[in-house]
Amino acid sequence: MNRCVTVVGLGPGRTDWCTPAVSERIAAATDLVGYDRYLEMVEQPTNAVRHASANRVEAERARLALDLAEAGGNVVVVSSGDPGVFAMASAVLEQLDEFPDRWRTVAVDVLPGITAAQALASRVGAPLGHDFCVISLSDVLKPWTTIEHRLAAAAAADFVIALYNPRSRHRPHQFADAMAVIGRYRSPATPVIVGHHVGRTEEVIRVVDLAALDPDSVDMSTVVIVGSSTTRVIERPVASSVYTPRTYPAGTF
Amino acid sequence: MNRCVTVVGLGPGRTDWCTPAVSERIAAATDLVGYDRYLEMVEQPTNAVRHASANRVEAERARLALDLAEAGGNVVVVSSGDPGVFAMASAVLEQLDEFPDRWRTVAVDVLPGITAAQALASRVGAPLGHDFCVISLSDVLKPWTTIEHRLAAAAAADFVIALYNPRSRHRPHQFADAMAVIGRYRSPATPVIVGHHVGRTEEVIRVVDLAALDPDSVDMSTVVIVGSSTTRVIERPVASSVYTPRTYPAGTF
Repeated sequence: MNRCVTVVGLGPGRTDWCTPAVSERIAAATDLVGYDRYLEMVEQPTNAVRHASANRVEAERARLALDLAEAGGNVVVVSSGDPGVFAMASAVLEQLDEFPDRWRTVAVDVLPGITAAQALASRVGAPLGHDFCVISLSDVLKPWTTIEHRLAAAAAADFVIALYNPRSRHRPHQFADAMAVIGRYRSPATPVIVGHHVGRTEEVIRVVDLAALDPDSVDMSTVVIVGSSTTRVIERPVASSVYTPRTYPAGTF
Repeated sequence: MNRCVTVVGLGPGRTDWCTPAVSERIAAATDLVGYDRYLEMVEQPTNAVRHASANRVEAERARLALDLAEAGGNVVVVSSGDPGVFAMASAVLEQLDEFPDRWRTVAVDVLPGITAAQALASRVGAPLGHDFCVISLSDVLKPWTTIEHRLAAAAAADFVIALYNPRSRHRPHQFADAMAVIGRYRSPATPVIVGHHVGRTEEVIRVVDLAALDPDSVDMSTVVIVGSSTTRVIERPVASSVYTPRTYPAGTF
Protein backbone atom coordinates (compact mmCIF):
# COMPACT_ATOMS: atom_id res chain seq x y z
CA MET A 1 0.00 0.00 0.00
CA ASN A 2 2.98 2.36 -0.11
CA ARG A 3 2.87 5.33 -2.44
CA CYS A 4 -0.84 5.36 -1.77
CA VAL A 5 -3.24 7.97 -0.44
CA THR A 6 -6.41 6.40 0.96
CA VAL A 7 -9.19 8.84 1.75
CA VAL A 8 -11.39 7.31 4.43
CA GLY A 9 -14.61 8.25 6.22
CA LEU A 10 -14.95 7.51 9.93
CA GLY A 11 -18.71 7.96 9.84
CA PRO A 12 -20.36 10.68 11.93
CA GLY A 13 -18.66 10.05 15.25
CA ARG A 14 -19.59 6.78 16.95
CA THR A 15 -16.65 4.40 16.64
CA ASP A 16 -19.02 1.48 15.97
CA TRP A 17 -20.23 3.23 12.80
CA CYS A 18 -16.70 3.13 11.30
CA THR A 19 -16.33 0.21 8.88
CA PRO A 20 -13.69 -2.50 9.45
CA ALA A 21 -12.23 -1.63 6.02
CA VAL A 22 -11.45 1.87 7.29
CA SER A 23 -10.11 0.68 10.65
CA GLU A 24 -7.75 -1.75 8.91
CA ARG A 25 -6.43 0.93 6.59
CA ILE A 26 -5.80 3.27 9.52
CA ALA A 27 -3.99 0.48 11.42
CA ALA A 28 -1.61 -0.02 8.47
CA ALA A 29 -0.94 3.68 7.80
CA THR A 30 2.43 5.38 8.15
CA ASP A 31 0.81 8.83 8.18
CA LEU A 32 -2.62 10.16 9.12
CA VAL A 33 -3.57 13.49 7.56
CA GLY A 34 -6.65 15.49 8.47
CA TYR A 35 -8.50 18.35 10.04
CA ASP A 36 -7.48 18.28 13.70
CA ARG A 37 -10.98 17.61 15.02
CA TYR A 38 -11.33 14.57 12.75
CA LEU A 39 -7.91 13.18 13.67
CA GLU A 40 -8.98 13.36 17.31
CA MET A 41 -11.84 10.99 16.43
CA VAL A 42 -9.30 8.23 15.60
CA GLU A 43 -9.20 6.32 18.89
CA GLN A 44 -7.71 3.02 17.74
CA PRO A 45 -4.03 2.27 18.44
CA THR A 46 -1.75 3.37 15.61
CA ASN A 47 1.94 4.09 15.14
CA ALA A 48 1.22 6.50 12.32
CA VAL A 49 2.51 10.06 12.39
CA ARG A 50 -0.43 12.46 12.73
CA HIS A 51 -0.42 15.56 10.53
CA ALA A 52 -3.22 17.75 11.84
CA SER A 53 -4.32 20.89 10.06
CA ALA A 54 -6.87 23.64 10.58
CA ASN A 55 -10.24 23.74 8.86
CA ARG A 56 -10.52 25.24 5.34
CA VAL A 57 -7.04 24.31 4.13
CA GLU A 58 -8.20 21.30 2.11
CA ALA A 59 -5.92 21.95 -0.90
CA GLU A 60 -2.76 22.24 1.23
CA ARG A 61 -3.78 19.15 3.21
CA ALA A 62 -4.32 17.18 0.00
CA ARG A 63 -0.90 18.18 -1.36
CA LEU A 64 0.76 17.19 1.93
CA ALA A 65 -0.86 13.77 1.74
CA LEU A 66 0.23 13.28 -1.88
CA ASP A 67 3.78 14.42 -1.08
CA LEU A 68 4.03 12.00 1.87
CA ALA A 69 2.82 9.15 -0.33
CA GLU A 70 5.28 10.03 -3.09
CA ALA A 71 8.06 9.85 -0.50
CA GLY A 72 7.03 6.24 0.15
CA GLY A 73 4.29 6.60 2.74
CA ASN A 74 1.09 4.66 3.20
CA VAL A 75 -1.00 7.75 3.82
CA VAL A 76 -4.56 7.87 5.12
CA VAL A 77 -6.55 11.09 4.84
CA VAL A 78 -9.21 11.08 7.55
CA SER A 79 -12.66 12.60 7.02
CA SER A 80 -15.73 12.30 9.18
CA GLY A 81 -18.87 10.97 7.53
CA ASP A 82 -18.30 9.83 3.94
CA PRO A 83 -15.13 11.27 2.35
CA GLY A 84 -16.93 11.36 -1.01
CA VAL A 85 -19.73 13.68 0.16
CA PHE A 86 -18.61 17.34 0.44
CA ALA A 87 -15.28 16.17 1.83
CA MET A 88 -11.65 15.33 1.21
CA ALA A 89 -11.92 12.81 -1.66
CA SER A 90 -12.77 15.56 -4.15
CA ALA A 91 -10.13 17.83 -2.60
CA VAL A 92 -7.39 15.24 -3.27
CA LEU A 93 -8.58 14.55 -6.81
CA GLU A 94 -8.76 18.28 -7.54
CA GLN A 95 -5.01 18.46 -6.86
CA LEU A 96 -4.26 15.58 -9.23
CA ASP A 97 -6.38 17.32 -11.86
CA GLU A 98 -4.69 20.67 -11.35
CA PHE A 99 -1.13 19.28 -11.41
CA PRO A 100 -1.16 16.38 -13.90
CA ASP A 101 2.65 16.10 -13.90
CA ARG A 102 2.97 15.63 -10.15
CA TRP A 103 2.45 12.53 -7.99
CA ARG A 104 2.26 10.30 -11.08
CA THR A 105 3.20 7.13 -9.19
CA VAL A 106 0.83 7.75 -6.28
CA ALA A 107 -2.36 5.65 -6.18
CA VAL A 108 -5.48 7.21 -4.69
CA ASP A 109 -8.12 5.06 -3.07
CA VAL A 110 -11.40 6.09 -1.40
CA LEU A 111 -13.20 4.09 1.31
CA PRO A 112 -16.81 5.07 1.99
CA GLY A 113 -18.32 5.91 5.37
CA ILE A 114 -21.75 6.49 6.88
CA THR A 115 -22.63 10.06 5.98
CA ALA A 116 -24.35 12.44 8.40
CA ALA A 117 -27.70 12.49 6.58
CA GLN A 118 -28.02 8.70 6.72
CA ALA A 119 -27.05 8.65 10.37
CA LEU A 120 -29.55 11.38 11.24
CA ALA A 121 -32.26 9.62 9.24
CA SER A 122 -31.64 6.34 11.07
CA ARG A 123 -32.01 8.06 14.45
CA VAL A 124 -35.62 9.03 13.78
CA GLY A 125 -36.82 6.31 11.38
CA ALA A 126 -36.56 6.47 7.62
CA PRO A 127 -37.15 9.97 6.23
CA LEU A 128 -34.83 9.17 3.27
CA GLY A 129 -36.96 6.17 2.31
CA HIS A 130 -37.99 7.77 -0.99
CA ASP A 131 -36.23 9.93 -3.62
CA PHE A 132 -34.02 12.58 -2.01
CA CYS A 133 -31.46 15.33 -2.68
CA VAL A 134 -28.34 16.25 -0.76
CA ILE A 135 -27.34 19.92 -0.94
CA SER A 136 -24.62 21.91 0.80
CA LEU A 137 -25.76 25.41 1.76
CA SER A 138 -22.20 26.73 1.93
CA ASP A 139 -21.58 29.42 -0.67
CA VAL A 140 -17.83 29.48 -0.10
CA LEU A 141 -17.29 27.43 -3.30
CA LYS A 142 -20.51 28.02 -5.26
CA PRO A 143 -22.83 30.97 -5.90
CA TRP A 144 -25.81 31.45 -3.60
CA THR A 145 -28.01 31.84 -6.69
CA THR A 146 -27.11 28.27 -7.69
CA ILE A 147 -28.07 27.05 -4.22
CA GLU A 148 -31.43 28.85 -4.34
CA HIS A 149 -32.10 27.47 -7.81
CA ARG A 150 -31.37 23.91 -6.66
CA LEU A 151 -33.46 24.26 -3.51
CA ALA A 152 -36.41 25.45 -5.59
CA ALA A 153 -35.97 22.63 -8.13
CA ALA A 154 -35.72 19.97 -5.41
CA ALA A 155 -38.69 21.35 -3.49
CA ALA A 156 -40.88 21.74 -6.57
CA ALA A 157 -40.19 18.14 -7.61
CA ASP A 158 -41.10 17.00 -4.06
CA PHE A 159 -37.75 15.44 -3.14
CA VAL A 160 -36.87 14.95 0.50
CA ILE A 161 -33.97 17.40 0.99
CA ALA A 162 -30.91 16.85 3.20
CA LEU A 163 -28.93 20.01 3.92
CA TYR A 164 -25.24 20.05 4.88
CA ASN A 165 -23.33 23.10 6.19
CA PRO A 166 -26.64 24.86 6.81
CA ARG A 167 -25.38 28.00 8.54
CA SER A 168 -22.20 29.68 9.69
CA ARG A 169 -21.24 32.87 11.47
CA HIS A 170 -20.17 34.31 8.12
CA ARG A 171 -23.63 33.79 6.57
CA PRO A 172 -26.20 33.87 9.37
CA HIS A 173 -29.19 34.71 7.16
CA GLN A 174 -28.81 32.01 4.53
CA PHE A 175 -30.50 29.16 6.35
CA ALA A 176 -33.64 31.23 6.85
CA ASP A 177 -33.48 32.26 3.20
CA ALA A 178 -33.18 28.61 2.18
CA MET A 179 -36.18 27.61 4.29
CA ALA A 180 -38.17 30.44 2.68
CA VAL A 181 -37.40 29.03 -0.77
CA ILE A 182 -38.50 25.55 0.30
CA GLY A 183 -41.56 26.99 2.08
CA ARG A 184 -42.90 28.23 -1.25
CA TYR A 185 -43.47 24.59 -2.21
CA ARG A 186 -43.99 22.76 1.10
CA SER A 187 -46.75 22.83 3.69
CA PRO A 188 -45.97 24.58 7.02
CA ALA A 189 -46.63 21.18 8.67
CA THR A 190 -43.81 19.44 6.78
CA PRO A 191 -41.64 17.48 9.24
CA VAL A 192 -38.08 18.79 9.54
CA ILE A 193 -35.38 16.77 11.34
CA VAL A 194 -32.58 18.81 12.91
CA GLY A 195 -29.50 16.92 14.08
CA HIS A 196 -26.63 18.45 16.04
CA HIS A 197 -23.38 16.49 16.45
CA VAL A 198 -25.04 13.31 15.15
CA GLY A 199 -23.35 10.20 16.52
CA ARG A 200 -21.39 12.04 19.22
CA THR A 201 -22.00 12.14 22.93
CA GLU A 202 -23.40 15.67 22.61
CA GLU A 203 -25.91 14.58 19.95
CA VAL A 204 -29.26 16.42 19.99
CA ILE A 205 -32.01 15.58 17.50
CA ARG A 206 -35.32 17.37 17.16
CA VAL A 207 -38.30 16.95 14.84
CA VAL A 208 -40.26 20.14 14.21
CA ASP A 209 -42.78 21.47 11.71
CA LEU A 210 -41.29 23.60 8.93
CA ALA A 211 -43.29 26.59 10.20
CA ALA A 212 -41.88 26.19 13.74
CA LEU A 213 -38.23 25.80 12.72
CA ASP A 214 -36.00 28.38 14.41
CA PRO A 215 -33.04 29.27 12.15
CA ASP A 216 -31.02 30.16 15.23
CA SER A 217 -31.18 26.51 16.32
CA VAL A 218 -28.97 25.56 13.37
CA ASP A 219 -25.20 25.92 12.98
CA MET A 220 -22.29 24.29 11.11
CA SER A 221 -22.45 21.17 13.28
CA THR A 222 -26.05 20.60 12.19
CA VAL A 223 -27.52 18.48 9.43
CA VAL A 224 -31.13 19.13 8.45
CA ILE A 225 -33.57 16.87 6.60
CA VAL A 226 -36.72 18.51 5.21
CA GLY A 227 -39.49 16.03 4.45
CA SER A 228 -41.40 15.78 1.18
CA SER A 229 -45.19 16.11 0.95
CA THR A 230 -45.52 12.43 1.91
CA THR A 231 -43.12 12.35 4.89
CA ARG A 232 -45.04 11.43 8.04
CA VAL A 233 -44.59 11.42 11.80
CA ILE A 234 -45.95 8.36 13.67
CA GLU A 235 -46.69 9.04 17.32
CA ARG A 236 -46.23 5.82 19.30
CA PRO A 237 -46.16 4.87 22.99
CA VAL A 238 -42.57 3.56 22.72
CA ALA A 239 -41.03 6.29 20.58
CA SER A 240 -42.17 8.44 17.68
CA SER A 241 -40.78 7.91 14.20
CA VAL A 242 -40.51 9.91 11.00
CA TYR A 243 -40.54 8.18 7.65
CA THR A 244 -41.21 8.68 3.97
CA PRO A 245 -43.35 5.90 2.48
CA ARG A 246 -42.04 3.95 -0.47
CA THR A 247 -45.32 4.54 -2.27
CA TYR A 248 -45.92 7.88 -3.99
CA PRO A 249 -49.50 8.78 -4.96
CA ALA A 250 -50.50 9.30 -8.57
CA GLY A 251 -51.79 12.71 -9.62
CA THR A 252 -49.58 14.82 -7.34
CA PHE A 253 -47.78 16.34 -10.31
CA MET B 1 -33.29 -5.42 23.44
CA ASN B 2 -36.27 -7.77 23.53
CA ARG B 3 -39.55 -6.65 22.01
CA CYS B 4 -37.40 -4.76 19.53
CA VAL B 5 -37.16 -4.77 15.75
CA THR B 6 -33.82 -3.42 14.55
CA VAL B 7 -33.60 -2.75 10.83
CA VAL B 8 -29.96 -2.95 9.79
CA GLY B 9 -27.97 -2.41 6.60
CA LEU B 10 -25.10 -4.74 5.78
CA GLY B 11 -23.67 -2.37 3.21
CA PRO B 12 -23.39 -3.41 -0.43
CA GLY B 13 -21.78 -6.83 0.02
CA ARG B 14 -18.22 -6.75 1.32
CA THR B 15 -18.25 -7.89 4.94
CA ASP B 16 -15.65 -5.25 5.86
CA TRP B 17 -18.13 -2.53 4.83
CA CYS B 18 -20.62 -3.66 7.50
CA THR B 19 -20.39 -1.50 10.63
CA PRO B 20 -19.54 -3.02 14.04
CA ALA B 21 -22.85 -1.63 15.35
CA VAL B 22 -24.70 -3.83 12.85
CA SER B 23 -22.54 -6.91 13.49
CA GLU B 24 -23.14 -6.60 17.24
CA ARG B 25 -26.88 -6.35 16.80
CA ILE B 26 -26.92 -9.42 14.55
CA ALA B 27 -24.83 -11.35 17.10
CA ALA B 28 -27.40 -10.61 19.82
CA ALA B 29 -30.50 -11.36 17.73
CA THR B 30 -32.97 -14.16 18.41
CA ASP B 31 -34.41 -13.89 14.89
CA LEU B 32 -33.08 -12.67 11.56
CA VAL B 33 -35.72 -11.65 9.02
CA GLY B 34 -35.02 -10.77 5.40
CA TYR B 35 -35.04 -11.37 1.70
CA ASP B 36 -33.26 -14.69 1.23
CA ARG B 37 -30.38 -13.26 -0.80
CA TYR B 38 -29.63 -10.70 1.90
CA LEU B 39 -29.81 -13.27 4.73
CA GLU B 40 -27.21 -15.29 2.81
CA MET B 41 -24.89 -12.29 3.10
CA VAL B 42 -24.80 -12.71 6.91
CA GLU B 43 -21.63 -14.77 7.34
CA GLN B 44 -20.90 -14.15 11.01
CA PRO B 45 -21.73 -16.87 13.58
CA THR B 46 -25.22 -16.50 15.05
CA ASN B 47 -27.69 -18.70 16.88
CA ALA B 48 -30.62 -16.69 15.56
CA VAL B 49 -33.47 -18.35 13.71
CA ARG B 50 -33.41 -17.24 10.08
CA HIS B 51 -36.75 -16.30 8.49
CA ALA B 52 -36.03 -15.94 4.77
CA SER B 53 -38.63 -14.61 2.36
CA ALA B 54 -38.88 -13.96 -1.36
CA ASN B 55 -38.40 -10.55 -2.94
CA ARG B 56 -41.36 -8.13 -3.13
CA VAL B 57 -43.14 -9.26 0.04
CA GLU B 58 -41.87 -6.38 2.17
CA ALA B 59 -45.16 -5.78 4.01
CA GLU B 60 -45.55 -9.43 5.05
CA ARG B 61 -41.89 -9.56 6.09
CA ALA B 62 -42.31 -6.42 8.19
CA ARG B 63 -45.38 -7.84 9.96
CA LEU B 64 -43.55 -11.10 10.66
CA ALA B 65 -40.68 -9.17 12.25
CA LEU B 66 -43.07 -7.11 14.39
CA ASP B 67 -44.99 -10.24 15.45
CA LEU B 68 -41.78 -12.03 16.45
CA ALA B 69 -40.71 -9.01 18.51
CA GLU B 70 -44.10 -8.75 20.20
CA ALA B 71 -43.73 -12.41 21.21
CA GLY B 72 -40.51 -11.43 23.03
CA GLY B 73 -37.92 -11.66 20.31
CA ASN B 74 -34.87 -9.50 19.67
CA VAL B 75 -35.50 -9.30 15.95
CA VAL B 76 -33.12 -7.99 13.30
CA VAL B 77 -34.42 -7.20 9.81
CA VAL B 78 -31.52 -7.47 7.38
CA SER B 79 -31.21 -5.19 4.33
CA SER B 80 -28.27 -4.75 2.03
CA GLY B 81 -26.92 -1.22 1.63
CA ASP B 82 -28.63 1.31 3.91
CA PRO B 83 -32.00 0.12 5.28
CA GLY B 84 -33.25 3.71 5.17
CA VAL B 85 -32.73 4.16 1.41
CA PHE B 86 -35.43 2.44 -0.69
CA ALA B 87 -35.40 -0.48 1.75
CA MET B 88 -36.94 -2.18 4.76
CA ALA B 89 -36.93 0.64 7.34
CA SER B 90 -39.81 2.41 5.59
CA ALA B 91 -41.57 -0.92 5.02
CA VAL B 92 -41.59 -1.61 8.79
CA LEU B 93 -42.72 1.91 9.67
CA GLU B 94 -45.50 1.73 7.06
CA GLN B 95 -46.96 -1.22 8.98
CA LEU B 96 -46.88 0.68 12.28
CA ASP B 97 -48.59 3.58 10.56
CA GLU B 98 -51.25 1.38 8.95
CA PHE B 99 -52.07 -0.57 12.15
CA PRO B 100 -51.70 1.92 15.03
CA ASP B 101 -53.29 -0.48 17.54
CA ARG B 102 -50.86 -3.33 16.89
CA TRP B 103 -47.34 -3.90 18.20
CA ARG B 104 -47.68 -1.02 20.69
CA THR B 105 -44.94 -2.32 22.98
CA VAL B 106 -42.46 -3.05 20.19
CA ALA B 107 -39.56 -0.62 19.78
CA VAL B 108 -38.19 -0.04 16.28
CA ASP B 109 -34.58 0.93 15.75
CA VAL B 110 -32.69 1.59 12.49
CA LEU B 111 -28.92 1.19 12.03
CA PRO B 112 -27.44 2.81 8.92
CA GLY B 113 -25.22 1.11 6.34
CA ILE B 114 -23.08 2.09 3.39
CA THR B 115 -25.51 2.54 0.49
CA ALA B 116 -24.76 1.35 -3.04
CA ALA B 117 -24.32 4.83 -4.54
CA GLN B 118 -21.66 5.76 -1.99
CA ALA B 119 -19.87 2.48 -2.50
CA LEU B 120 -19.93 2.85 -6.28
CA ALA B 121 -18.73 6.44 -6.01
CA SER B 122 -15.80 5.41 -3.81
CA ARG B 123 -14.69 2.81 -6.35
CA VAL B 124 -14.03 5.41 -9.02
CA GLY B 125 -13.15 8.52 -7.01
CA ALA B 126 -15.66 11.11 -5.80
CA PRO B 127 -18.48 11.71 -8.30
CA LEU B 128 -20.84 12.59 -5.38
CA GLY B 129 -18.48 15.31 -4.17
CA HIS B 130 -21.02 18.05 -4.92
CA ASP B 131 -24.84 18.36 -4.64
CA PHE B 132 -26.59 15.18 -5.75
CA CYS B 133 -29.96 13.43 -6.01
CA VAL B 134 -30.88 9.80 -5.39
CA ILE B 135 -33.83 8.49 -7.44
CA SER B 136 -35.34 5.03 -7.79
CA LEU B 137 -36.47 4.30 -11.34
CA SER B 138 -38.89 1.59 -10.22
CA ASP B 139 -42.47 2.50 -11.00
CA VAL B 140 -43.94 -0.34 -8.95
CA LEU B 141 -44.80 2.11 -6.13
CA LYS B 142 -44.85 5.50 -7.90
CA PRO B 143 -46.05 6.82 -11.26
CA TRP B 144 -43.57 6.95 -14.13
CA THR B 145 -44.66 10.54 -14.79
CA THR B 146 -43.37 11.47 -11.32
CA ILE B 147 -40.05 9.81 -12.07
CA GLU B 148 -39.70 11.66 -15.39
CA HIS B 149 -40.60 14.94 -13.71
CA ARG B 150 -37.95 14.40 -11.02
CA LEU B 151 -35.29 13.37 -13.52
CA ALA B 152 -35.93 16.54 -15.52
CA ALA B 153 -35.86 18.73 -12.40
CA ALA B 154 -32.62 17.16 -11.15
CA ALA B 155 -30.95 17.36 -14.55
CA ALA B 156 -32.04 20.96 -15.19
CA ALA B 157 -30.67 22.05 -11.80
CA ASP B 158 -27.36 20.28 -12.62
CA PHE B 159 -27.37 17.79 -9.76
CA VAL B 160 -25.27 14.65 -9.99
CA ILE B 161 -27.93 11.90 -10.19
CA ALA B 162 -27.66 8.43 -8.61
CA LEU B 163 -30.19 5.93 -9.97
CA TYR B 164 -31.37 2.85 -8.07
CA ASN B 165 -33.44 -0.02 -9.56
CA PRO B 166 -32.64 1.27 -13.06
CA ARG B 167 -34.21 -1.49 -15.12
CA SER B 168 -36.10 -4.75 -14.77
CA ARG B 169 -37.53 -7.36 -17.10
CA HIS B 170 -40.99 -5.91 -16.46
CA ARG B 171 -39.96 -2.45 -17.69
CA PRO B 172 -37.09 -2.87 -20.18
CA HIS B 173 -37.57 0.51 -21.91
CA GLN B 174 -37.59 2.78 -18.89
CA PHE B 175 -33.86 3.15 -18.38
CA ALA B 176 -33.43 4.36 -21.97
CA ASP B 177 -36.37 6.72 -21.48
CA ALA B 178 -34.78 8.07 -18.30
CA MET B 179 -31.47 8.66 -20.06
CA ALA B 180 -33.32 10.50 -22.83
CA VAL B 181 -34.85 12.86 -20.25
CA ILE B 182 -31.45 13.54 -18.70
CA GLY B 183 -29.89 13.88 -22.16
CA ARG B 184 -32.05 16.92 -22.85
CA TYR B 185 -30.01 18.79 -20.21
CA ARG B 186 -26.59 17.09 -20.22
CA SER B 187 -23.77 16.96 -22.73
CA PRO B 188 -23.25 13.62 -24.58
CA ALA B 189 -19.76 13.57 -23.02
CA THR B 190 -21.11 13.54 -19.44
CA PRO B 191 -19.37 10.76 -17.44
CA VAL B 192 -21.71 7.97 -16.34
CA ILE B 193 -20.60 5.35 -13.81
CA VAL B 194 -22.27 1.95 -14.09
CA GLY B 195 -21.78 -0.48 -11.21
CA HIS B 196 -22.95 -4.10 -11.21
CA HIS B 197 -22.99 -6.06 -7.94
CA VAL B 198 -20.94 -3.34 -6.20
CA GLY B 199 -18.90 -4.76 -3.33
CA ARG B 200 -19.38 -8.40 -4.32
CA THR B 201 -16.91 -10.77 -5.94
CA GLU B 202 -18.72 -10.40 -9.27
CA GLU B 203 -18.45 -6.58 -9.15
CA VAL B 204 -18.03 -4.87 -12.54
CA ILE B 205 -17.70 -1.09 -12.81
CA ARG B 206 -17.50 0.92 -16.02
CA VAL B 207 -17.22 4.63 -16.77
CA VAL B 208 -18.74 5.65 -20.11
CA ASP B 209 -19.93 8.80 -21.83
CA LEU B 210 -23.67 9.42 -21.62
CA ALA B 211 -23.90 9.12 -25.44
CA ALA B 212 -22.15 5.72 -25.38
CA LEU B 213 -24.24 4.19 -22.58
CA ASP B 214 -25.92 0.94 -23.65
CA PRO B 215 -29.25 0.53 -21.80
CA ASP B 216 -28.92 -3.25 -22.19
CA SER B 217 -25.82 -3.13 -19.96
CA VAL B 218 -28.04 -2.18 -16.99
CA ASP B 219 -30.28 -4.41 -14.86
CA MET B 220 -31.74 -4.55 -11.33
CA SER B 221 -28.34 -5.36 -9.82
CA THR B 222 -26.93 -2.12 -11.23
CA VAL B 223 -26.54 1.31 -9.71
CA VAL B 224 -25.85 4.22 -12.06
CA ILE B 225 -24.37 7.65 -11.31
CA VAL B 226 -24.79 10.33 -13.98
CA GLY B 227 -22.35 13.21 -13.61
CA SER B 228 -23.26 16.89 -13.56
CA SER B 229 -21.84 19.44 -16.01
CA THR B 230 -18.74 19.74 -13.81
CA THR B 231 -18.01 16.03 -13.23
CA ARG B 232 -14.61 15.15 -14.69
CA VAL B 233 -12.54 12.10 -15.58
CA ILE B 234 -8.81 12.28 -14.74
CA GLU B 235 -6.70 9.92 -16.84
CA ARG B 236 -3.65 8.87 -14.81
CA PRO B 237 -0.84 6.35 -15.20
CA VAL B 238 -1.85 4.53 -11.98
CA ALA B 239 -5.62 4.50 -12.40
CA SER B 240 -8.21 6.89 -13.75
CA SER B 241 -10.63 8.66 -11.45
CA VAL B 242 -13.98 10.41 -11.76
CA TYR B 243 -14.87 13.25 -9.48
CA THR B 244 -17.10 16.26 -9.10
CA PRO B 245 -15.21 19.35 -7.90
CA ARG B 246 -16.36 21.09 -4.75
CA THR B 247 -16.29 24.41 -6.60
CA TYR B 248 -19.19 25.32 -8.88
CA PRO B 249 -18.66 28.14 -11.40
CA ALA B 250 -20.72 31.32 -11.26
CA GLY B 251 -22.92 32.19 -14.19
CA THR B 252 -23.99 28.65 -15.13
CA PHE B 253 -27.59 29.32 -14.22
